Amino acid sequence: MDVSAIIVAAGQGSRIGGSLPKQFQDIGGKPVTAHSLLKFEACKAITEIVLIVSEGWLEFAVELARKYKIAKLSQVIIGGKERQDSVFKGLNALTAQPDIVAIHDAVRPFISIIKIEETVRAAQEFGGALVAVPVKDTIKAEKNGFVEKTLDRKVLWAVQTPQTFQFEILSEAYKNAYHKGIYSTDDSALVEMAGHPVKIIEGDYQNMKITVPSDFALAEKLIENN
Amino acid sequence: MDVSAIIVAAGQGSRIGGSLPKQFQDIGGKPVTAHSLLKFEACKAITEIVLIVSEGWLEFAVELARKYKIAKLSQVIIGGKERQDSVFKGLNALTAQPDIVAIHDAVRPFISIIKIEETVRAAQEFGGALVAVPVKDTIKAEKNGFVEKTLDRKVLWAVQTPQTFQFEILSEAYKNAYHKGIYSTDDSALVEMAGHPVKIIEGDYQNMKITVPSDFALAEKLIENN
Repeated sequence: MDVSAIIVAAGQGSRIGGSLPKQFQDIGGKPVTAHSLLKFEACKAITEIVLIVSEGWLEFAVELARKYKIAKLSQVIIGGKERQDSVFKGLNALTAQPDIVAIHDAVRPFISIIKIEETVRAAQEFGGALVAVPVKDTIKAEKNGFVEKTLDRKVLWAVQTPQTFQFEILSEAYKNAYHKGIYSTDDSALVEMAGHPVKIIEGDYQNMKITVPSDFALAEKLIENN
Repeated sequence: MDVSAIIVAAGQGSRIGGSLPKQFQDIGGKPVTAHSLLKFEACKAITEIVLIVSEGWLEFAVELARKYKIAKLSQVIIGGKERQDSVFKGLNALTAQPDIVAIHDAVRPFISIIKIEETVRAAQEFGGALVAVPVKDTIKAEKNGFVEKTLDRKVLWAVQTPQTFQFEILSEAYKNAYHKGIYSTDDSALVEMAGHPVKIIEGDYQNMKITVPSDFALAEKLIENN
């Protein structure tokens, strides 16, 4: 079975200080994206990795992949305007049409190899799967500045990546989205809109997204404890 | 206007290692609960503070309040079985019936004084108010292990504390909840059930709840940056 991973590292990182975008800053002495790549490299279910970066970061990324010996990397490509455009470019760049494709945000370096595998198996069985964690906060829906209702937390999941799909299903969902002019940062939403089931795989809170400077402090702590 | 704050520090802290429950562990060289008490002490809108602790922590808490000179503290009381029981004991213990009561979890030491004030003003105007932040994650509702739907994130808020209400409204809502056998860790939910409006005050992500050990690393970082 051919399973391609598309690792999206195309963010500008404008919310983080410092000269490097956040996906290329170090945690535990290694760039965030290197951590993510190494997880997919080590995951037996993954047969190919495509890395997506923004303009100007191609050489940096190629050198990073060489340094960390990412043997499954087939190509590094320049992303598009929005995340959806980047993933679509990745889908179109896949060398041979794979059976399954796993989309992962490079800024989630703590993904576990087992969870990647679980999404691949579930995508094979059901068509699509994503990693998510139960919502810890009380969530309320708002209307005109007031609480409209308190949601039933028991059925709520906070979505992470990877989000993994049969290639045909994801590819059709993307074409469908562009056809209808729909943009989303959530791959699963496009697949849901196309009417396909998406399995929820319970993940770990540790699979955090590195978004703001304080996330780096927490990430360093997680690395220490690992 | 009389505005009482009920600071709930009655958790057993079983999820955190170490001998002290998490609300009494230090961040920046000061117990978590001391940070919270000092915010309400410094907030001009607050006229009285009642601190709720669990059995065995009364003397510790009294000494803590003395050390940090919490002049508005009127009493330290032992909480009940559940959080709701603790808050209800706090409500019944208030020396004079106040106009407004603000409920705050001691494990949110980064609450801003301005946000406390904003909830008091909104509670005075509308009956109830709570601090919340826009949900950052994509949230999905689950059914039988699959995604049922992707929620519209634009209207979703993650609830924090303080939650602040006119005393009469909160008191009635609590009595109503006990009458109906309803338990909730969310004061606002009880007020909503009683049919009263609750205003959403946009707060800060920094007003985090200290729940797991890694939260302390993040909290220390937040203190450094303050």
